[in-house]
Amino acid sequence: MTETTLLVSKIKDGTVIDHITGGHALDVVKILGITGKTNGIVLIAMHVPSKQLGLKDIVKVEGRELDQEEVDKIALLAPGASINIVRNYQVIDKKRVKLPSLILGIVKCGNPACISNSNEPVQPIFYVEQEEPLRLSCHYCGHIMEKKDVLQQF
Amino acid sequence: MTETTLLVSKIKDGTVIDHITGGHALDVVKILGITGKTNGIVLIAMHVPSKQLGLKDIVKVEGRELDQEEVDKIALLAPGASINIVRNYQVIDKKRVKLPSLILGIVKCGNPACISNSNEPVQPIFYVEQEEPLRLSCHYCGHIMEKKDVLQQF
Repeated sequence: MTETTLLVSKIKDGTVIDHITGGHALDVVKILGITGKTNGIVLIAMHVPSKQLGLKDIVKVEGRELDQEEVDKIALLAPGASINIVRNYQVIDKKRVKLPSLILGIVKCGNPACISNSNEPVQPIFYVEQEEPLRLSCHYCGHIMEKKDVLQQF
Repeated sequence: MTETTLLVSKIKDGTVIDHITGGHALDVVKILGITGKTNGIVLIAMHVPSKQLGLKDIVKVEGRELDQEEVDKIALLAPGASINIVRNYQVIDKKRVKLPSLILGIVKCGNPACISNSNEPVQPIFYVEQEEPLRLSCHYCGHIMEKKDVLQQF
């Protein structure tokens, strides 16, 4: 069947994001800015069985590699994800995302009164209190951000 | 490779929407209300080569069949799409979507002054002037709706 062949076709150059927490593939797609207008093959699998995770999602993106901010954002949603760089059909690099203990800059505090939301030049800083389910606490005001709060910003 | 095997795995029961106009897979996913919280395997392929369409998208959804309103909405975005019903790993029915000449009810007129947007009990009616790129004209006020206008409503 043609469609089966197409779905299985390997990516020549690009990135495979594997072991995404089940249900977060479309969030990863959003983080990567993938829309219908993006070029290149994109393959997305949602809710496939995984020994490690129960259910996992996979996103394969042809023709691009991820920058650090994209990887950090993925780590917030899917701390078990692995990023595989593919060149000429071969996986040349494979690494797990890693959630740092401090989140700098990529998440804004949900407390409007927080000094990081004022006009002061204050970079948002969060402590990772818990990875899964995600729980971040603001360095300045102690406000707690959960995964759904973070997702709204991506 | 495990991930390859998983991507190619057939759907036991569900629907394969094939020959979606390239770039519209995520719109189809939205029409079907698929989010991370939906159950069942979902496979999405974007921008894969197609003899007929140049580039096409494919969406496979396990565990559900589509209702007529969903099929009609898909026809507006991707008039070349085919809907394959799968039961017990076999395609038991395959049909092309068909854009009717009159669109009843599923698109609202973008002209706020149109009588179909008043409090009167007037069902929106559009004539399909052109399938691709989509061009609908309102029966009541002649307002033209293009694909992007329709997409905003889905």
